Amino acid sequence: MLLTQTQRLTLVEQVACQIQGKIENGEWRVGMRIPPEPELMEQLQVSRNTLREAIRALTYAGLLKTRQGDGTYVCSSSVLGSVIEKVIKHTDRLESLEVRYALEREAAALAASRRSEEDLEAIRTCLDKCREAAGRQDLKTYAHWDVEFHKMVIAASHNQLMGNLYNHITEALHNMVLDTEDFKNAAFYHDSHDLLYQAIANRDCPQAEEAVRLYIEKARTKMC
Amino acid sequence: MLLTQTQRLTLVEQVACQIQGKIENGEWRVGMRIPPEPELMEQLQVSRNTLREAIRALTYAGLLKTRQGDGTYVCSSSVLGSVIEKVIKHTDRLESLEVRYALEREAAALAASRRSEEDLEAIRTCLDKCREAAGRQDLKTYAHWDVEFHKMVIAASHNQLMGNLYNHITEALHNMVLDTEDFKNAAFYHDSHDLLYQAIANRDCPQAEEAVRLYIEKARTKMC
Repeated sequence: MLLTQTQRLTLVEQVACQIQGKIENGEWRVGMRIPPEPELMEQLQVSRNTLREAIRALTYAGLLKTRQGDGTYVCSSSVLGSVIEKVIKHTDRLESLEVRYALEREAAALAASRRSEEDLEAIRTCLDKCREAAGRQDLKTYAHWDVEFHKMVIAASHNQLMGNLYNHITEALHNMVLDTEDFKNAAFYHDSHDLLYQAIANRDCPQAEEAVRLYIEKARTKMC
Repeated sequence: MLLTQTQRLTLVEQVACQIQGKIENGEWRVGMRIPPEPELMEQLQVSRNTLREAIRALTYAGLLKTRQGDGTYVCSSSVLGSVIEKVIKHTDRLESLEVRYALEREAAALAASRRSEEDLEAIRTCLDKCREAAGRQDLKTYAHWDVEFHKMVIAASHNQLMGNLYNHITEALHNMVLDTEDFKNAAFYHDSHDLLYQAIANRDCPQAEEAVRLYIEKARTKMC
């Protein structure tokens, strides 16, 4: 019975699963070129046709991209990420902001009750880097650490499903943020992010939720 | 330039996209057997090999399932759904509950400010069906209308991204609910669901959030 179950996967599916595993566990990172065909055929002990079909299935799933005459590259760290990215592209920005609010508010409250000292330090570092970048008017670096700040707060909630959903939505939003972000509101965001940091440090759940509400409200008014 | 871009999709990808489109727009529903190979080859004007590879890619993506000697069936209504289902299967139940809380609380507040009369009626109908089923001790019907109730509240938020994420998470959770649900707490859930309905009817956002907090708290204590 168990033998039949494992054999239900076709050879192509088994190969695709193995490659997907290497990507999702981080062994093969986004932007990396995967090993050339002959090497993979040797490692996996499969024919060229089987390997190619597995790679095409993973390309369709959004994990790999083949550049003609160059090779095959990892283009997303997970299937969930690539699917969410496609969905977000077709979503209105106000809707995305409301979903961010839902996840960030609850994660902030959980972070306030569960954060470790290391979480707190990681959040502090992101804030400092943001302020530095704003001082130099370096928008790209600023946007990077701003996204990291929010990811660190979510990580401090110690809820992996929340982190998973949120990080993928955030990555999809990152470029859009970069498009519209400016430094006119930098001081406001510093203050509300500091407020969030303080609330998490003080294990004050209602205050953490309130800080999230403040900066989301600000983003909402900027949109209208 | 535009011509080159459209040609970047291989024939297999084009066929897979077309089939995926039929599934995601609801023309081909979950549980349906897709038309036989010769018919699809004729409609799409492609070879058997191309069609089979496209079907295998969609099988890998979790949309189709081939039963040997029978045919190929639609097994998920979207790629997002099938990916979230796989993620939820490996997620601890408390984490799932926290994500549900995040989404349901915000959706309840949005529903209270945006619901139409039709939304309200749809929510009311679900509650009535729940109560009826509980009266007959019909667990399966009860669980069905309970899930529908929550989906209708999310729908009343008029945020499609929220609905998309939530409905897929809920479908993944449905069977787990069915496993553990009993009627011991039915009266409590009726009351808190009624409270949520009333808050949405009265356009009372804080009360809507509070109703969600009450039944999520109850579910959390049942878990411990």
